[in-house]
Amino acid sequence: MSNPEYQHLLTEQDGATVRITMNRPETRNSLSAGHLAELRRAFEAAAETKATGIVLAGAGPVFSSGHDFGDMADRDLAGMRELLRLCESLMRTIHAVPQVVIARVHGPAVAAGCQLVATCDLAVAAESAGFALPGGKGGWFCHTPAVPVARSIGRKRLMEMALTGDLVDAATAERWGLVNQVVPDAELDAAVEALLARATRGSRHAKAVGKQTIYAQLDRPEADAYAIATEVMAATSQTADARERMRAFLEKRPPAFGD
Amino acid sequence: MSNPEYQHLLTEQDGATVRITMNRPETRNSLSAGHLAELRRAFEAAAETKATGIVLAGAGPVFSSGHDFGDMADRDLAGMRELLRLCESLMRTIHAVPQVVIARVHGPAVAAGCQLVATCDLAVAAESAGFALPGGKGGWFCHTPAVPVARSIGRKRLMEMALTGDLVDAATAERWGLVNQVVPDAELDAAVEALLARATRGSRHAKAVGKQTIYAQLDRPEADAYAIATEVMAATSQTADARERMRAFLEKRPPAFGD
Amino acid sequence: MSNPEYQHLLTEQDGATVRITMNRPETRNSLSAGHLAELRRAFEAAAETKATGIVLAGAGPVFSSGHDFGDMADRDLAGMRELLRLCESLMRTIHAVPQVVIARVHGPAVAAGCQLVATCDLAVAAESAGFALPGGKGGWFCHTPAVPVARSIGRKRLMEMALTGDLVDAATAERWGLVNQVVPDAELDAAVEALLARATRGSRHAKAVGKQTIYAQLDRPEADAYAIATEVMAATSQTADARERMRAFLEKRPPAFGD
Repeated sequence: MSNPEYQHLLTEQDGATVRITMNRPETRNSLSAGHLAELRRAFEAAAETKATGIVLAGAGPVFSSGHDFGDMADRDLAGMRELLRLCESLMRTIHAVPQVVIARVHGPAVAAGCQLVATCDLAVAAESAGFALPGGKGGWFCHTPAVPVARSIGRKRLMEMALTGDLVDAATAERWGLVNQVVPDAELDAAVEALLARATRGSRHAKAVGKQTIYAQLDRPEADAYAIATEVMAATSQTADARERMRAFLEKRPPAFGD
Repeated sequence: MSNPEYQHLLTEQDGATVRITMNRPETRNSLSAGHLAELRRAFEAAAETKATGIVLAGAGPVFSSGHDFGDMADRDLAGMRELLRLCESLMRTIHAVPQVVIARVHGPAVAAGCQLVATCDLAVAAESAGFALPGGKGGWFCHTPAVPVARSIGRKRLMEMALTGDLVDAATAERWGLVNQVVPDAELDAAVEALLARATRGSRHAKAVGKQTIYAQLDRPEADAYAIATEVMAATSQTADARERMRAFLEKRPPAFGD
Repeated sequence: MSNPEYQHLLTEQDGATVRITMNRPETRNSLSAGHLAELRRAFEAAAETKATGIVLAGAGPVFSSGHDFGDMADRDLAGMRELLRLCESLMRTIHAVPQVVIARVHGPAVAAGCQLVATCDLAVAAESAGFALPGGKGGWFCHTPAVPVARSIGRKRLMEMALTGDLVDAATAERWGLVNQVVPDAELDAAVEALLARATRGSRHAKAVGKQTIYAQLDRPEADAYAIATEVMAATSQTADARERMRAFLEKRPPAFGD
């Protein structure tokens, strides 16, 4: 739905789901500073709602082609740092929002567009989707897109993507673990819907802390990860929803979680 | 074998293998504080023997359903921390014992039960096995089970398990790397036996330091991992078994390792 | 090509590719101190050239059998540390050279030979290749080879390789992510050539910083990885090749990168 607040996005809330659609098809949804700032703002706005899921999609034939060279070619070092830190803060925001974020990838997801897919909690790809880190065959390497991609697929596969820059098809991306599922194009919306429905059941309060804690404990030595996860698990045991879950189990009735 | 020392477990030593069987089928082998403490004690006792392998199994239709809500519902924060730290220390003990620990997963391994499978050095699953982190669809997220699961499978797959809470079948668990093998139910014991036999050859002294060092170097930047592994490799080169291995190779005879 | 500078290696430069071939077939390309030192020297020499790719291969039926027990059996702790630190510094050199390094694995790659494959940026295996960490079934565990192998494949698979010591076939190695491709033996050279050609397009300056930055950011918490990658991405945006890439895109012409 068009929203006068946004120039580059369509956003709508449909029941418990917020849909954020990158809507710059004429630039293949490239990520200018303005586009990045709106995306961050849209995720922050969704975070304030009681929605339990966010779908990130792209209008037109491409999911996203990555950064917008038109917005970059004249930036000096300070200007480029500012832009890249904005991009990084969008990625952090996706991890921080209490909702489950799922990428709906219908076409190519390239460079920072591939970074978005790797950053979302979940991702479903259509057979027409593809994934690339093309900086490796150009003049400017995909350093930052490689960060979340490296944390989703194995090292040799990361190096292949980053060094060749070639497009990886959807089936390969699923086999490597970059996306959760690949489905025929016509089934994409149903598959996104079905996975999001399964991923948003239960207490939304518990789920929010859950995803945030996973991102906090990942990529750390196991003892450090337990230091985080054990404290959070103990602390959340005292919440109303956790108490309700345990009592309902013992009383053999379905639980009723807080709003 | 029933052992008067344990209320919740069966343990037996069969040649070089210690078998530890969770034996609370009436609670689907749920992990009460008493059960966790006995498991830790049983692993510690096995560590003192000259056994080279430990099989962790479950009696009844379920491998383990995870924590015991009956033992948890009334705990305050301090009590819950105590319980979860006991659970964490069981996981650490499995990594610390000198034996190769293999999970024999014949049925569902859920929440902390799935954590046990992810924590064991090796795991063989029957086709009837399944794996789930169900907290994500309840009121209390599986924060701590997600720690070793995150270190066994890719990030997108972890998020899918943790957010949906749904059961992952044995073939998928093998494809994702959560278990080493999946076999028809009737072949489970033979497959566990065969993999354990292959994994317990050679010097038991070298193997003990080997598994402990792997857990020490994992999940660290590569230079930090080498700082550990290079020193251990140099130090262990001076052991009798390493010397014997090299001499036997040079003298073209089979090595004879220490007891 | 035989090169009087090297006793254990063949090296040749063929266009933009340097070929380094371990040439001690009588010891199955075992890695004595002399051999390791020559390998490091050959990589350092290649780094000084304008070549864009390095192929690491082995002469004779075996890729490499790992350390040379004949060179090790009499070393004391100090001597062993020296040898292992030389080995570690070879691995660091492979990551540090500006070229894309690809392993051409035609036969067994064992222990430190397997470590070499895991350390190269890319690897193509023939169907006759195999991969093993045999220390686990001997008297001296493969502690250091397990470091890069752990960073290429999942944890359960690492434990299986390290504990059993058994040979993993090429197809399994590809499925686990230890190599990028497996091809029929007769197609090995063509496949190495083709992957290297795809991996060495574009600016060699950008690619060099690219691979070095990936190794710097791997295995760290994501925020730490971004702290590195964002700064490098901003800094490299100011290079001539990045500027040229952006201008060429905007001017709809092919880019021309620096020499």
